[in-house]
Amino acid sequence: MLKVEHIGIAVQSLQNSIPLFEALLNTSCYKQEQVDSEAVRTAFFRKGETKVELLEPTSPESVIARFLEKKGEGMHHIAFDVADIHAEMARLAAAGFTLLHPEPKKGADNKLVCFLHPKGTNGVLVELCQEIF
Amino acid sequence: MLKVEHIGIAVQSLQNSIPLFEALLNTSCYKQEQVDSEAVRTAFFRKGETKVELLEPTSPESVIARFLEKKGEGMHHIAFDVADIHAEMARLAAAGFTLLHPEPKKGADNKLVCFLHPKGTNGVLVELCQEIF
Repeated sequence: MLKVEHIGIAVQSLQNSIPLFEALLNTSCYKQEQVDSEAVRTAFFRKGETKVELLEPTSPESVIARFLEKKGEGMHHIAFDVADIHAEMARLAAAGFTLLHPEPKKGADNKLVCFLHPKGTNGVLVELCQEIF
Repeated sequence: MLKVEHIGIAVQSLQNSIPLFEALLNTSCYKQEQVDSEAVRTAFFRKGETKVELLEPTSPESVIARFLEKKGEGMHHIAFDVADIHAEMARLAAAGFTLLHPEPKKGADNKLVCFLHPKGTNGVLVELCQEIF
């Protein structure tokens, strides 16, 4: 794990939250992207080497819709940049962490991603991500 | 706001969570610190330019104890490094954000800190922090 690549925040409405986070972070949203496989629309902001990613559900079946229903808006996950996602998944599985899927999948922002089960990480949903070149 | 200075995570027990996060992040805890004013013990890890801060309550009256009771273990706050905390507090107050205290206070890790009310930030507890030189 190299750095905090982004922090994911679940929101009801990008339309409301993009100007709010632009004011908060004092920087413009530089990208929006729809991720159909996750049924979310995302919006990105940069602060130093880390991004803030807002996530709005596009369907009531989206994991983000279920998160909002259960917990309300707020921090959803932390994503760490890794150099070799397969090696990092193997290292973490060997250390006793539970991977939510056995192979990396294609996530937002041109990344291969894998999530760890939050039951094994003190309730923190951790994402590993590796840039696709 | 310059960068994500740290991500605060509420835990029941540093004794259990320090080895867990050392395994997860593949790095050693480099500092522990008790903050009596907040009734917490903290433990720090470094990943790139950002720290992970674990927070264990030392009293049932601690805000972290109340958070754990209500929400369980997990992400508690995001802290952003600022160059001039008074200027940043004034900027955010003028933009309509609610500061949880009118003056910066002394936090962990030799910082002046100020929190924003999460009701105004989509449920995210945001901390501003400035290194004390």
